[in-house]
Amino acid sequence: MKIEGKEYRTIWFEKNNVKIIDQTKLPHQFIIKDLKIVKDAINAIKNMEVRGAPLIGATAAYGLVLAILENNDQSFLNKSASDLISARPTAINLKWAVDRMINKLSGVNSKKILEIALNEASEICKEDIEICKSIGSNGLKIIEKIYEKKKDTINILTHCNAGWLATIDWGTATSPIYHAHQKGIDIHVWVDETRPRNQGANLTSYELNEEGISNTVITDNAGGLLMQRGQVDMCIVGTDRTLKNGDVCNKVGTYLKALAAKENNVPFYVALPSTTIDWKTKSYKDIPIEERNSEELSTMEGVDENNQLKKIRIYPKKSRALNLAFDITPSKFVTKLITERGTCNASEEGLRGLF
Amino acid sequence: MKIEGKEYRTIWFEKNNVKIIDQTKLPHQFIIKDLKIVKDAINAIKNMEVRGAPLIGATAAYGLVLAILENNDQSFLNKSASDLISARPTAINLKWAVDRMINKLSGVNSKKILEIALNEASEICKEDIEICKSIGSNGLKIIEKIYEKKKDTINILTHCNAGWLATIDWGTATSPIYHAHQKGIDIHVWVDETRPRNQGANLTSYELNEEGISNTVITDNAGGLLMQRGQVDMCIVGTDRTLKNGDVCNKVGTYLKALAAKENNVPFYVALPSTTIDWKTKSYKDIPIEERNSEELSTMEGVDENNQLKKIRIYPKKSRALNLAFDITPSKFVTKLITERGTCNASEEGLRGLF
Repeated sequence: MKIEGKEYRTIWFEKNNVKIIDQTKLPHQFIIKDLKIVKDAINAIKNMEVRGAPLIGATAAYGLVLAILENNDQSFLNKSASDLISARPTAINLKWAVDRMINKLSGVNSKKILEIALNEASEICKEDIEICKSIGSNGLKIIEKIYEKKKDTINILTHCNAGWLATIDWGTATSPIYHAHQKGIDIHVWVDETRPRNQGANLTSYELNEEGISNTVITDNAGGLLMQRGQVDMCIVGTDRTLKNGDVCNKVGTYLKALAAKENNVPFYVALPSTTIDWKTKSYKDIPIEERNSEELSTMEGVDENNQLKKIRIYPKKSRALNLAFDITPSKFVTKLITERGTCNASEEGLRGLF
Repeated sequence: MKIEGKEYRTIWFEKNNVKIIDQTKLPHQFIIKDLKIVKDAINAIKNMEVRGAPLIGATAAYGLVLAILENNDQSFLNKSASDLISARPTAINLKWAVDRMINKLSGVNSKKILEIALNEASEICKEDIEICKSIGSNGLKIIEKIYEKKKDTINILTHCNAGWLATIDWGTATSPIYHAHQKGIDIHVWVDETRPRNQGANLTSYELNEEGISNTVITDNAGGLLMQRGQVDMCIVGTDRTLKNGDVCNKVGTYLKALAAKENNVPFYVALPSTTIDWKTKSYKDIPIEERNSEELSTMEGVDENNQLKKIRIYPKKSRALNLAFDITPSKFVTKLITERGTCNASEEGLRGLF
C-alpha cells in the first residue's frame, strides 16, 4: 500500500540484505532498515521493529536466509531457527514459518540451500499477500451488505494494527476496509489508540491517512460509549492466534470491545489468515500470555516542539506496572471469522467447514 | 492524607487566597498553587488543576469567596456563579455547590457576606470529609466480608482517580481501601492508567504509593483479562453523576470494566456522595458527555532524562482524534452503590431507601 504516495511492501530482499520498515519509528519517522545477519532479524522481531503475525513469520523466514548467508552449517541453522521461534512467544505463525523453512531445507544440498531458502521465503510473502487479498474480498461482502441497508457512511471500529504494516501488504482487518474504499463505499474508521504501544494511533491511523481513508483516533476507553450511542456499525479486528473452538487471542483490550459489541448488538468480526489457526491447543487457558517490559507503559515516545524524537517517563517514579500484551475473546463474542477461504462461525464446526 | 509523609487536604483558605495542589503537575511535581481571583478558580476547574466532583464543588464554593473579595457586587457574584457552573458541564455537584452558596448568600448584608461565604465554603469541605469517611466505613464492610472468605490479599481494580485528590480528603472509591488498609487488611490495587489524562497512573497510583498501599498500574485494556483469570476480587470506581435509576456516569472506560466484571462474576461497586445523585434527569441519554480538546490524546506530558517536564506529540501529524471524557454504566452492571448513608442497589428503590 501507499506511503507518501509511493507503493511499498513491509519486507523485501535486496543485495543480500533484508529490508524492513522500522515500525518502532513510525509514525514520526519513515525509516527503511537493513537486516544483515540473523541476529538482526531476531532483534527486529523482539523489539517489534516488525510486528503482526504474518510479518513476523516472513521476517523469521528471511532471517533463516540471512543465517545461511552468514554460516552455511546445519547446527547454526537449527540454533537460528530455535532463537527465531523464541523471539516472541505468542505469535503462532512465527513457529509455522520457521518449521516450513526448515522442512523445505532439510537434506538440501549446501550449494542449493540459499536459492531454495530465498524462494521459499519469497513464496511465504506471495502467499500472504494472496491470503490478505482474499480476506479483503470476503470481508468486503459483509461491508457491502451493511452499506446496502444503511446507504450512509459505515463506521468501523478496529483495535491495534492488523493493517498492511502487520502483514506484507493489504493487512487482515484492514483489507476489507481497503477493498470497500476502492469500491467507493464511504468508510470512517474509529481507531483505538491501543495502549501501551499505541499501534492503533501510530500505525493504523497512519496507514489509513496515507490511503486517504477517513479515520478518528479514540482512547481504548471510548469504544463502549460509541457503541452505546449507535456510532459503530461493525468491529473488525485481527488475531495472533485463533483456537479451533473459535476463541481468539489478540492484542490486549480486544476482549473489552467484544463485550461492548455483544451488549450493543454491534457485529464483531475477526479477520485471520488460516496460518494463525491453532488446531492443537484445546483451551485458551493453555495459551501463554506474553508479559512485556513495563517500561512500555511507564515511558512514552513522541516528537518534541523541534520535531525531535523524545522519550519521557509518564508514571510516578515509585509506581510498578504490569504489561500484559494479549487477551482472549471467547468465541461466543465473535459474530464471524473472516478467512481467506470465506467467512464462518467462530466454532470448530465453522472452521472445519472451510479448512 | 499523606504526601511525602505530611498530612494534606486538597484545598484550603489562607491569607485571602485559596490554596490548591496543582494536579496537572502531579505526579512529577508537587506544587501548591494560589488562587487569587475568581477567574483563577474558573481556570483551575477548566484546566483540571482541580478535578473530581467533590473538589470541583469545593473550588467553586471558594471561587465565590474570591469573587466577593474581588468585587462585592451582586451582579458580579451572579456572573461568577454562572461562569463557574459552565467551567465543566458534566459534574453535577459543581452546580450544587454554587447554588448552595448563592442561596446562603441571598439577601445577606454586604458587611457580613464574606464571613458567611467563607463559613459556608468551609462547611462544604467539612461535610465532604465526613461523607468520604462514611463511604469508607460502609465500603470497608464489603471488603471485610470478601476478606473473611478469601483470607488472602484482596485485589481491587479501580478506574481513574476517585481518590482523596478528587475530594477534600479520603476520596470516594479509595476511602474503603484506605480504611481497610488501616485495619490491617492486605490490599493490592490494580490501577487503570485511565487515558487520555492518565489520572489512574498519575494520581491514584501516586496517592496509594504515598500511603504505602501496594498497587500496580495496568493499561485500560488489561482489566478484562485480569478478571477472566480470576485476579480481581472486586472493582470500586467513583462517579461524576448517578441517575436516580442507578445509571452511573463516570470517566470514560468505566462501562467497559463493568461489562467485564459482569461477565466474570466480579462484583462492581460505585462509591458516591449523595451530592452527585441527579434526581431529575430521567435517561442517561439526556446527560451531556463532555468532549474535551483532542490534544489531550495526541500529546503526552512527562519528564525527560534530566527530570524536566516535557510535552511531546505522540500521534501522526495528520491524524484526527476525538476526546470523549465520560461514559455511562447502566445500573444492571452495578452490584451496589456505596454512599455515606450505607450501601444500596443501583435503582430508584435502592436510593430512595437511603435518601
